[in-house]
Parts: sequence; C-alpha cells; structure tokens
Amino acid sequence: MTQTAQHIYRFGNGTIDGNGLMLDLLGGKGACLAEMTNLMVPIPPGFTITTAVCQHWLNNAAYPGGVEAEIDAALSWLQEASSHLWNDAGNPLLVSVRSGAPVSMPGMMDTILNVGLNEQGLASLRERGGSMRFALDSYRRLMQMFGTTVFDVPKEAFDRAMNQLKQSRNIASDAALSEADLLDLVNAYQRIVVQHTGSPFPQDPCQQLKMAVNAVFRSWQSGRAQCYRKLNNIPESMGTAVTVQTMVFGNRGDNSGTGVGFTRNPSTGARAIFGEFLPNAQGEDIVAGTRTPLPLSELQQRMPAVYQQLATIASQLEQHYREAQDFEFTVENGRLFLLQTRTAKRTAAAAVRIAVEMVSEGMISRHEALTRVRPEDITAVLSPQLDLTSDTPMQLTQGLATSPGAAVGQIVFSADEAVARAASGKNVILLTEETTADDIHGIAVAKGILTSRGGATSHAAVVARGMGKCCITGARDIHWDSHSGSVQIGGKRFYAGEWLSLDGTTGNVFEGRLPLRPASQQNLFLETLLQWASESSSCLVRANADTPQDAITARTAHAAGIGLCRTEHMFFAPDRLEHVRAMILASSTEERIQELNLLLPMQQQDFEQLFRTMSPFPVTIRLLDPPLHEFLPPLEELDGEIAAASREECWDHVIQLRRIRQQVEVLREVNPMMGHRGCRLSLTYPEILQMQVRAILQAALSVSNEGLNPVPEILVPLVASEEEMKLLAEMIDQTATAVFDSHQQHIPYTIGAMIELPRAAICADRIANHVSFVSFGTNDLTQMTYGFSRDDARTYLDSYLQKGVLKADPFLTIDREGVGHLMEMAVRTIRIGHPHTKIGVCGEHGGDPESIKFFHSLGVDYVSCSPARLAAAQLATAQASLLQQPSSSLAKAETELAAALA
Amino acid sequence: MTQTAQHIYRFGNGTIDGNGLMLDLLGGKGACLAEMTNLMVPIPPGFTITTAVCQHWLNNAAYPGGVEAEIDAALSWLQEASSHLWNDAGNPLLVSVRSGAPVSMPGMMDTILNVGLNEQGLASLRERGGSMRFALDSYRRLMQMFGTTVFDVPKEAFDRAMNQLKQSRNIASDAALSEADLLDLVNAYQRIVVQHTGSPFPQDPCQQLKMAVNAVFRSWQSGRAQCYRKLNNIPESMGTAVTVQTMVFGNRGDNSGTGVGFTRNPSTGARAIFGEFLPNAQGEDIVAGTRTPLPLSELQQRMPAVYQQLATIASQLEQHYREAQDFEFTVENGRLFLLQTRTAKRTAAAAVRIAVEMVSEGMISRHEALTRVRPEDITAVLSPQLDLTSDTPMQLTQGLATSPGAAVGQIVFSADEAVARAASGKNVILLTEETTADDIHGIAVAKGILTSRGGATSHAAVVARGMGKCCITGARDIHWDSHSGSVQIGGKRFYAGEWLSLDGTTGNVFEGRLPLRPASQQNLFLETLLQWASESSSCLVRANADTPQDAITARTAHAAGIGLCRTEHMFFAPDRLEHVRAMILASSTEERIQELNLLLPMQQQDFEQLFRTMSPFPVTIRLLDPPLHEFLPPLEELDGEIAAASREECWDHVIQLRRIRQQVEVLREVNPMMGHRGCRLSLTYPEILQMQVRAILQAALSVSNEGLNPVPEILVPLVASEEEMKLLAEMIDQTATAVFDSHQQHIPYTIGAMIELPRAAICADRIANHVSFVSFGTNDLTQMTYGFSRDDARTYLDSYLQKGVLKADPFLTIDREGVGHLMEMAVRTIRIGHPHTKIGVCGEHGGDPESIKFFHSLGVDYVSCSPARLAAAQLATAQASLLQQPSSSLAKAETELAAALA
Repeated sequence: MTQTAQHIYRFGNGTIDGNGLMLDLLGGKGACLAEMTNLMVPIPPGFTITTAVCQHWLNNAAYPGGVEAEIDAALSWLQEASSHLWNDAGNPLLVSVRSGAPVSMPGMMDTILNVGLNEQGLASLRERGGSMRFALDSYRRLMQMFGTTVFDVPKEAFDRAMNQLKQSRNIASDAALSEADLLDLVNAYQRIVVQHTGSPFPQDPCQQLKMAVNAVFRSWQSGRAQCYRKLNNIPESMGTAVTVQTMVFGNRGDNSGTGVGFTRNPSTGARAIFGEFLPNAQGEDIVAGTRTPLPLSELQQRMPAVYQQLATIASQLEQHYREAQDFEFTVENGRLFLLQTRTAKRTAAAAVRIAVEMVSEGMISRHEALTRVRPEDITAVLSPQLDLTSDTPMQLTQGLATSPGAAVGQIVFSADEAVARAASGKNVILLTEETTADDIHGIAVAKGILTSRGGATSHAAVVARGMGKCCITGARDIHWDSHSGSVQIGGKRFYAGEWLSLDGTTGNVFEGRLPLRPASQQNLFLETLLQWASESSSCLVRANADTPQDAITARTAHAAGIGLCRTEHMFFAPDRLEHVRAMILASSTEERIQELNLLLPMQQQDFEQLFRTMSPFPVTIRLLDPPLHEFLPPLEELDGEIAAASREECWDHVIQLRRIRQQVEVLREVNPMMGHRGCRLSLTYPEILQMQVRAILQAALSVSNEGLNPVPEILVPLVASEEEMKLLAEMIDQTATAVFDSHQQHIPYTIGAMIELPRAAICADRIANHVSFVSFGTNDLTQMTYGFSRDDARTYLDSYLQKGVLKADPFLTIDREGVGHLMEMAVRTIRIGHPHTKIGVCGEHGGDPESIKFFHSLGVDYVSCSPARLAAAQLATAQASLLQQPSSSLAKAETELAAALA
Repeated sequence: MTQTAQHIYRFGNGTIDGNGLMLDLLGGKGACLAEMTNLMVPIPPGFTITTAVCQHWLNNAAYPGGVEAEIDAALSWLQEASSHLWNDAGNPLLVSVRSGAPVSMPGMMDTILNVGLNEQGLASLRERGGSMRFALDSYRRLMQMFGTTVFDVPKEAFDRAMNQLKQSRNIASDAALSEADLLDLVNAYQRIVVQHTGSPFPQDPCQQLKMAVNAVFRSWQSGRAQCYRKLNNIPESMGTAVTVQTMVFGNRGDNSGTGVGFTRNPSTGARAIFGEFLPNAQGEDIVAGTRTPLPLSELQQRMPAVYQQLATIASQLEQHYREAQDFEFTVENGRLFLLQTRTAKRTAAAAVRIAVEMVSEGMISRHEALTRVRPEDITAVLSPQLDLTSDTPMQLTQGLATSPGAAVGQIVFSADEAVARAASGKNVILLTEETTADDIHGIAVAKGILTSRGGATSHAAVVARGMGKCCITGARDIHWDSHSGSVQIGGKRFYAGEWLSLDGTTGNVFEGRLPLRPASQQNLFLETLLQWASESSSCLVRANADTPQDAITARTAHAAGIGLCRTEHMFFAPDRLEHVRAMILASSTEERIQELNLLLPMQQQDFEQLFRTMSPFPVTIRLLDPPLHEFLPPLEELDGEIAAASREECWDHVIQLRRIRQQVEVLREVNPMMGHRGCRLSLTYPEILQMQVRAILQAALSVSNEGLNPVPEILVPLVASEEEMKLLAEMIDQTATAVFDSHQQHIPYTIGAMIELPRAAICADRIANHVSFVSFGTNDLTQMTYGFSRDDARTYLDSYLQKGVLKADPFLTIDREGVGHLMEMAVRTIRIGHPHTKIGVCGEHGGDPESIKFFHSLGVDYVSCSPARLAAAQLATAQASLLQQPSSSLAKAETELAAALA
C-alpha cells in the first residue's frame, strides 16, 4: 500500500468516491451505500474506512499514515452534507458506526448508534427529537451499545439495571419509561461504565469515533468470527471495512417512521411491493416486536408522496440489481432515507416464481434464472412440509434427515402391520429398528419411515428416498420394550396406533398430529424452469427405477432414461421369492435352471413394461447384485419355525426347514458387503446371468415388435478386473447370440461395468476395453475407499462430523479428495483410450447437487438418481453446465436423438 | 533372414561352429553340445538345425533356401567324424534327433533314437553290437519312437503288441525277449505302422531324418506346448532347434555302459561326485527301472580310467559353468561320451550349502550365491517335512497350504481340548471349522491346524504363519457330525484322538502317522547366507511380534526391529480378557477408565519385555484395532449360559449375562471389517488410546532406566484422512506430555499411520504431514481395494483362480495392478513432500518373496513379517536389492546406527 492510496470513501448527498463493485475494499455495506448514491437514492451521507486500513491496523496496531487526516476531512465534508456539526453541542452530528466485511459474517461487531452524542449535546437533541425523553433514550442506547462492544461490559449488566428500574416502577415496556426514569437509567449506566473501565463514559466525539472504529477492527479477530472464517474458508487477511453514517431518526413524530420492504412477495414470489411500516419509531422497535407494524399500504395512505417515492426507488433498485430486494428505510420529518438494500430472502416457491417471472419481464436471462434457484428449493416445492407455526409442536427426538418431506401418521412396528392398517385407510408411519429388503411392501404403503438404527444410506433411507417418501433414520433415543409392545421415544411411551409427525427436512420427530402443507402438484413456474434446465444441461439426468411404476414417474419427470434398475428388487415380490428361494436351495444346476425358468417370464414382463414406458430412452438393467442369503429367511426366524413345526410334530416340514437352515448357515458371511455378490455370483452361477440376459433381450425384442424403440443396457455389478469383465462380456454375448438365434431376430444392446470398487476405478481404462459404458456406484465406492460400512458407520460418523474430522457425510456428498480422486483417475484414463465410452453415475450421490457439480466437472455423460430427486438433479446439472467448462460428453447427441424419436 | 545365414551348426570331434551363448539360435541342447565341444569334452559328434529354420518352416511350410544342401554337407562331415557312413548298409551312421528350444519346455517331441537304421543295416549293426538281438531291439525302438512321434500312432498300439508277445512267451521283462521274439515284434510293429499310415516303415535314411526333423518342428505347435508358452509368457515366434547326433551304444558288452551323475550331492550339497551307473545298458534302461543301477564308485572299480576321465570332466564342467551340474554319459567299448550337462536339481538344504561353499571355493561371488537360493528353499530348510517316500500315504483331502511345514498328531476339535491333551504330552492337530481369537491358546499348543473354512489370510492361517506352525485351511471335504462327535474327511469317519498327517507345503491331508523329517536347527551354511543377505539388502526386514516370546524369536533371527505388535493379542490372555470385557461393558467413562487402569500395568509389562529384547532396535506398537465385540462372547454362547443359569435359578447371574448380551447386540455389526474399529475406537473411546500410549511410554522409560535403548514407535491403525491423523497425533502427544511430566523424564518416540484403506493411500502425503512413519497394512488394503472379505472370499476365489480371472491369490502375492498402484501412488507422493518419512510394509505380504520384489521396487524402507518367514524375507530383500536399482531408503542408516548400538 502506498502513501497515495485512498483510505476513506464518501457517499451520499451527491458525493460518491466508490461504487458497488468495490466490495473488497468497502465491504458489503459500504459498497451498497456507494451504489445507492450512484443511483441517486436518498441515503444519509457518510463515509467508509477501507478494509486496507483494517489490515494495516491488525498487522501494525496503527492506522496507515494519513488516515487520521482523511477522517478529519471526511468529517468536515459530512458536516456540510448533513447540516450538523461534529463535536458541537448546539447541533451535534451523530453517526452510526458499522462493520462491513466483503462477505457477510456473523460473530463481528454490528452497530453502534448515536456516536458523537455526549451530555452537552443532549439539549440540542431534545430540540431535534421534540423531547428530553428522546434525547436521553438516544444517549442510554449509545452507552449500552458502546459499553458492550467497545468496553466488553457484559450485556447482562445493562439489562439488569434496566429490569431493576422497570420493576421498581412496576412497568413492563421500555416505552413506558418516563423522562425521569431514563435519567436514572443513564446514571445507572454511567456507574456500570465507571465500574468496568475505571473512567466515566467518554464525552469527546472524536475519542468515541476512534474507539468505535477500533472495536470494529478488533471484532474481526473474535473467536466466533475466526471460527466462522475457518469453517467457510474465508481468508484471515481479508479484514473488514467500517461505515460511518449520519444518524436519521424515524421517531420524531407522526411524519416520521421506519420500515422494511420487499420488491416481491417473499412467500409466494408475486410481483408487488410488500412490507411493514411503523410510524414514529426507530428500526430497533420493529425488531423488538413491542409494537405491531402496519402494512405498507398504510404508509400509502398516511404519506402518499413518500410511498410513491419508495415504490419508485424499490422498482429502481430491483431493476438495477436485477434481483428482488429487501430494503430498510426511515422517514424523518417527511423525508425518506433508504438505509440498506440487499437480495431478498424468500421461500422455495417464491424463488422459483421470481426467477421465472423475471425472465418473462426481460430482466434476467434464462441462464441467470437457472443459477438463482437452489436445487434444494425444488425438492422443497415438491414435498409436503410440516406446518410448525400453527401450534406449539412437542419435539420428541431428532434422527438423521435421510429423505425429505414430511409425514403425519399412526405408528406401526412392522411392515405387515403397515399394510393391514393402510388397507383400512389409515395413514401409517413405519417405526422399526432398521428395515430390510423384506419390508418393502410396508415402506410402500407408509407415509413415512422412522428407524432407530442406520445412516443416510441404510436400507430404509435408500428405499424411502427412491419412493420420494419422508424418512428419518438412526434416531437413537428410541427404545423398544418388547414386554409391553411399546416404544419409548425421547423418554415418552408410545403404543402402536398413536400419532407422530416427522419432519424429513430436519430429522425432527414430533408428538401428535401436526398440520401438513401439501406439496404443490401443478407448478407451472417450476415446469418452465425445469424445461430450461434440460435445454441448458450438458449432462443428462436419468432415474433409478426398479419397478414399472418408478419408470412411469421417471418418464413423467422427463428422465433421460433409466440409469439403474436393480433387478433384485423384483425378486422380493412374494410370488417370486418362493422361486428365488427354491433356486438358491437347488441341489443341482439342473434344479436351479428349472426354478430360473419359472422366474424368467416374470422378469421379462417387468422389463417389457420398463422398455415400453421408457422407449426410446435407454434402460440400464443391473444384473443380480446382493449376496444370495439376503433372499433367505434369517436364522432366528427359521429357528422359531422349526420349534413350532416340532411342537406340532410336522416332521416333513421340520426336515425341509432344517435343510434351508443349513443353506443359510453355508451362505452366511462375516462381511457380506465384500462377499459373494455382484458379478461374483455370475461367475459361480452362470445360469442366473443367462436367465437375466435372456429376460432382458426377449423383453426388448417383444417391445420392439410393438413398434417401439427399446434401448437395453446390461450393467455388470462389482467388477474388479479386466479379466473378470472380459469373461462376463463373453458370457453375456453368448447368451445374446443364443436368444437372437432362437428368435431369428436381433436387437442392439450394450454392456457396461459398474465402477464401485477402488480396484475397478484404478483399472477402469482396461475394463473399458470390454464394455460400451461404465457407471460409478458411488455408494459402494465410498464404502470401500473409506472402509466405512454404511450399515454400521453411524456409531462413529456422528462423532466424526462433530469433531470436524469429516466435513460432510460422505454417503450424502461425494468425498472429492478420496473417492473423487479415484473417479477422476478413472474418467481421465477412460477418456484417453476410449473416447466413446459412455460414463454415468448411479449412486445415491447422483441426486445430490453438491456432488453433481463435481461429477459434471469430471465430464460424466449422465447422473442417475431416484425419481423423487430428479427435478433437483436436473436443475443442479444445468447449473453445473452453465457455471463450468462444458464437458466433452456424449449426452447432447443422445438427448437430441431420443427427442427426435420420442 | 538372408541367403548367407548359416542354418546348420556342427559340433564334436574338434569341430565347433557355435558356442554355449548361442542359446536363441541353437536351443538349450545345441548350445550345451557346442560348449562341451569347446571344452574338449568327448561327445558324439553331430549338428544342430537352428531355430531360424524352424521359424521359417512354421511360417512357410518349407525350409529356407540352401538348408537341404547344408544338411547334406553336415552329413558328409559327420560320416568322417563318426567313421560311419550315411545310408550305407555295411556301416550305417545312426543318429538321434532331438528337439531343443532356447528355454526348457514340456509338451514337445523329445527324442527319436537310431534314425538311419533300416532292414538292410541290421546285419552290420549285429556285428557292431555283437548280436542280432541288439540290432533288432535297436530297430524296434526306432519304429516305436518314430511311429508315435512322426506318425502319431497311439503309444498303446505298440505297448499292446509288446504285452501280447510277453504274455504269449510268459515272460515279464523286455530283457528276456529272445532274438526270435524281437523279430516277431518288429513284424508286429511293421503291421501297426502299415495299418496307421498305409505304407511300410520308411527305409530311406534321408526320408527318416527329414520326417523326424519336421516332427520336431511340428511339435512346437502342439496344444500342450502352446498352453505352456501362454502360461509362461514364452513368445510363439521363438521356435525350436533340432539336434542330430551320432548314436553311441552303452549296451555293447561289459566295457560299455551308461549313467547319470552330479558334481555335488543333490540331497545334502556335499562336494563329491555322485551318481549311478549301469553296465552294458542304454540310457532308457536307467529310466525304465528294470535293472538296479550301481553307485559311481562301482565304475571306479570296473573302469578306473573312464572314471578318472569322468571325474575330471565333471570338475571341468562345474568350473566352466560355475554351478553344480547333473550330466549323462555313455561308455561304448571303453570310450566315454558325455551326452548332456545341465544345472543340477537339488534340495533346499543342498541349494544353500552349494551356494555358500562355492563362495568359499572362490567359484562364485556372494551376490551370486544370494541370487541362486530361492526364498522358498529357506523356508523349507527351516520347516519339518513329511517323509512321503517311506510309506504309501493315504491322502484324504486337500486344502489350502496356508502355512508351510508339516505336522503329525492326534486330532482334537476345540482349543480347550488341544490344551488338555497337549498338557499330557500328546501331539495334537486342531481341527475346526474356523478359528477365532478365542482359540489362540489351542493354536499355540497344537502341532498343526486344519480347518474346513477360511482362506490364506483367515484367522487360523495368519496366526499359524505367525507362529511358524503348519496350517491347512479351507479343506472343503470335511463334514461334521455333531451327533456322533466325529468328522468325515474325504468320506472317511474320524473321532478325536485319531492320527492325521498334514503337509503344509501342498495342503495335502493324510490319514495316520507319517514319518517326519525335522527342521534343521543349526545350519551354519544358512546362517552364513543370511548374514550376507543382511549385508546386501537396502531394505530392512522386521518381524511382526505380538508377545515377548515372538520378540525373542525375532531377535534371534536378526530382525531389524518389530514392525508390528498387535496389542489386541495381549488382550485375549484369560487374566486380561475379564478386564477387557468389563472395560467394554462399562456404563460410564469413569468405570471404563477404572478397568483400563487395571489393564495398564499388564500391557506395560509386556511392552517392557519387548523393548528389553529388541533394544536398540525399534518396536512398532499398533493401537487397539479390532471391533470391541470381538472381545465379547458370541451370542449363541451367551444364550446357552443364560439358559443354564435360569435352570439353576441364579438370577443375579442371569441379569448380568443379559446385560452382556444386550451390549453384544449393540456392538454387533453387519460388516465388522468396515465397522467401528481401528483409530475409530480411539476417537470414540479416547481413554483406551490414553491407556495404551501411557503403557508404551512408561515401559520405554522404565527400560531406558535399565540402561537400554528402547525405540518406541506408535502406530495408528485404519487412518482414513489427514484430519483424523492430526487429531490422533495431538491426542498421543498430549498423553505423552502428561506421562513425561509426571515422571519428570522424557524419551523420544515417533507416531506412524497404518495405510490400509484406499483413501489413506490416496491422501498418504497429507497424512504424512502428521507422522514420522507410515506402514502399509496390505491385508486390509487388498480387502478394500478388491472388495474381497478374506473371511468369505474362499467361496469364489478358487473359481477365480481356476478361470484365470486371478493369476494369484491377492492375499498371498500383492496385486501390483490394483493394490500396488495405490501403494506406488502413496510412496511417490510421500517421497516428494516428506523425504524423511520412513515407509514400511507390515501385512502378510511382507513375508512373500514375490511381493517383496515389488515393495523393494517402490523403495520402501522395511518390510515386516512373521518371525517364521523372516529368513526367507531376508533373502528376498537381498535378492531384490541386488537385482533392482537401489531404492532411496533410510534403511541403511538405521541398521548401521542400531548395529553400532547393539
């Protein structure tokens, strides 16, 4: 920094040293005030001390040379601009001193009002405000704010004095304090200051100002601010600016007042000025909530000219910032001052509507609209929400918010019970320790799922997310009492049939039946936005769909295909499970093939429906993945059945059950996640692969004969090496040849490898020698890379997140450093040798916006997620496409082709 | 190939066209014969047709131009050199035709003797051999060898004719066939030839030769040869040479004979000519085994001059090749001919002795000696071996040879039973389904372990290898019969107390009590070799040692420190397990600390013994690794105890057991390998880490006060990220500071991270910011990278190995492509930013020679393996150091320092 650098930037009354772009130097507040001056918006004049001064002060405990003189000059100018005099008892210039870093940051000093006021100035201020009460109130506010922030007097000391006074006067509100009361209060505050600092409250305005500025600088290094910067990667060296601004008073009578406003309705997004106004009041009074504000229409009636001016300014600000604004204003003696304007906070629905309408108004481009809505907003718009405002909800416990939305229903403790109660029209919440594949029918009919074990990718969470159903998992404070058939939730006992309300967005569990705001079904604004998203995206979004119903949902939501169909979910249907079990228990290959032949038409029928629904978009069908023991009943259940059959002396049945038990024992694994599953099953039981490939291709042929365009993609799970993939591709091709030969008909199909083992990522380029596409299974890849079993990790993941060892749950947001490194390596090496290999992601992360950004940066061709997350993912891919370098993907060509055929 | 290239290389009788280095062109046999000619060793003269001719013939189905003429010229020369005439009935020149590729290769045509003989030549041959019987026998041998190899007549056809003849004559041995019999046989063979080829046996010697040569060429492409080349990466294009050599006859009377010899004893390695001799016989007679050969000393008595010549030649060959030789010779009418010499096959013990003695004889260098002994030889020398020769062993089944050596003992079915029987002096073999940590005491007393489940890195295998004890795992053909308390092994029933013999080198399980050859205890040759190894190695070898006893073994075997002490093994001792369980079941941190305080002195005592034994070498102690439930009794056991206590109405006990059961339920995990273990325990139960660090450092202080030099290294298991390691290093340092403060004394210690998760390998350089050393846990790293649970993988690993999807079991030999890639990445990035970080390997692979080669190539500083594998690993690291570029390791400096202090 040279001696010639400018340290002070003036604003207001037609003088502008800076502008809105000088965020780094002037901070958010200073830049905004400079910009409003530029726009000729009436603001109280003032000046900003730059962040550079702060940086110098922090490093050298002194201002850079010349700053004091610059401040003096600025104060001289300000006297002129404000028509008040600095350090003059007759017409004192009072200012506010505020911090303003280039980024919004909690933990720093906020505001000291009325700086420049001293005992000598009280008389003059009484004249200006109309009463000594006003002057004293202003002075005690200064003492309080200055005392706590500059002298570090505990806030409680001032609060206590205030409360003692109110008690002794037997009054409830500050507003009821008389002039005499306030004088007593000023004296009490003075004693507090003396007690804490050893000196009376400083009377020299210059000293007040300097101390206030230094307090702002010092607050940059408060523990909370440092902690916030660390968590948000904000550089320590940035520093804060200080804004010094002339005070204006909205409490000078009926032609004064203060208010806040929005350029659009923050709740619905409707285009109309919206806000509140409090006559004869200061900003703090609105915040304090002691008086009820009036709607802005009241201002229109009381001060039509001011209202008109405000409406014009609001419109001007929105036009200028090209974004809905929320602003603060004060009217002093009929004169309007804007104090602040910033991007308006808004609900999800409002965000969507504002973005879309601003495009039709020609204010912003479609691209801008797409980047202004957060993918979470889309999910929120599409999910029902608990209405927590209308009641005082009794929170019982908190679990992991693993699938968004909300649910209100009567609890049941088993899937069968859920089905029974739902059949009689009840809304049920399935409450269990964990769910298994056997509980799918219960999950399907429940309004929401609550479990006491399991994490974000536990069975319940994955299935519920897939169904777009609210789910809370791992709620630890739930304890079962098997004797009474009840549960204790947060220490309170519940029986089946009692009501609970689940908030899937926060993981909170409430007692009783809270009101629900339903999801918006028909949202034209959202439809429009998503249409734009799909046009802007260089990465396709497919859906994970296991059933024909899922496929219909996916197609309705404009999925670019099915990225993952987990065939095993079809195996759990009751009419099939019987054959699946018989197949597993088969004592010979012939017997197994016999059972598989019974399953084949059922699988084929499912696949036909998928192809029919999705034509002409591709459908990726994954071959059987889970270890076979998952299809057999658990040992405990079998032991119970054996005991029962023995009691009833059904010896044949006992023998049969014992045989099943033996097989369960044989198939049992210590670490099933790393066991005999995935393509390992295809190598040891080739007949299963053959049946599935046959079902897929026969289904495709049959749908093709209906005149449709099925696009079958066969995905091989858990591939670990090139040799393995080569062998499997040969097996698939051989089966395909046999099917085509016997049908005298041919249909194109492709083979892909699931990249879900670290080794597969390492050898991905060699695996790509034998496939047309690869799909990252990021769930398993995360498990293996971290060595975290998602079924078990809950016991320590929480403490890892708390201790900051993990920044985010790696099962929700992709771990870029570890898992991401493997993915990057795989994509890079594949692209070198196999530029035409299609690359997708089909793990849970495919629906997570933060992860999608990363996947897009890798240049994948598509992500695939559960139908419920599709809309949010479509927006996220569009945003990634707009903000990142376009990836060299095959996606565009494919969409265009499919669209042409559709 | 140009026209001027030489295709025929002559040898013998002073003429030499080639030499021993022309392996590629002349093949092994041709080069050897050329070399022997160079050495003036008497050999039957002949010539070699080069591999280039073979290559041309294979590509063009014709010889290169000029070859026929060269052969004619060579035959002319050979007539002179041999004093016989080609294609001359009066004095026929007979030759052998042999294949000889540059590398030894099974599956190719071997030999046709007596080529050039026809019916007209029989009379002359009768004269030369002294009988018509001799001539006819020579002719029928030609017909048989020629018929099977040139005409592809099934060998059985000739055998049948021979057997029919012997049956009709009622004689047992070929030698008993009369002249007339042989004439009948020749006629019978003639009929066979005609029947298979449509023509009589070829009488033209030139035609015979050409057909024999082509048959050799053709055999290069036999299925077996191709398969062998594929498996051994031998290029198809190499081709084979053909050696044509004058026949000599050892069966021309008492001053003729044939034999084989070794320059050193192939069994013991002792330096003395050793071999067998058969008077009046041909080479085949030795192989046929119909006559008992005489020791070479007999030759010395019968033909002292020949023996003297042979001894001189043997010594000359050994000196020339600088390697023990095995050679074949024939004496024809008192004239000695060498037929072949090659590197002698030998036992492991002989290999060690020969290598060491050749150094002291000045024949080879120490480096050469080190590279000539295979690491497996060392293991074999140090293990007892089953003597399978003395009996006809009855093999029951085969499992996985997971720990070498052999064991003979009476079977027991539980660890407790093993302890009880061993206490009464019995040799026991522990036979179970699998072993767990609870069985350690049984494994410790057993002679060998046999399990029906589990792979190469199952619990039983790992523990047994660590103890240097024979172990066979995953022997599938073992079935328990709980009713009778017996097992079926290979279909045969066995009760406890019956004898089995285990061959840990092959995995074979034999019935009964086979004789055992004990391991050599004091082998000075081995000691010497290992001393050289340690001097030559740029990579240290440490031992994995969990107990003070292990440490003593390691120190005796010159381990360069302890690379891994698994503290949990100390937790399983019965007097400690009680406190470990109480610690786990503690209902509060205070209670847990109380129990930990009881464990502390026990751990400290163990560590003191380790430090005392290993001073001044480093001792790496790993913090607690397994999930806590491993220390609790299994659910089934508890249920049994609860039932028993209920029957006896010990209600207090029932309540206590129920509490344990509940905790077991809570701690139970779906995938324990990826669960709450390793450093995750230290983060959730910091008091366990504190106790262990305290015990380690207090032990080090105490041993240091004895005047010794303990070097404690604290290893943190299962690290996944830099943040985690940082936190843990802080916790360790804090505890250390507390220990040092309270003892008013300080001792250096280092902290290390175990790299056993893919993620840790990816972020190794960042983890290295917080540690002084890292140690690769290759077992877990292999599990996670492949997604193979070693406890479960057996079900498909076998079929993967069979199908060639896996080239080797990745739990035995490091997977260079996948796991190795991660290791390479980790080492490379660590070395860039942290050149002083020590890098080690402490997985099971640290004892595998093939893996050691790879680790050495990465430049690791040390490998650590079980004490039983130490010697082999020491040799393997020396070999790697001698054969690879020296790695930039810290190892040397460290050894030298430790040696100076020792």
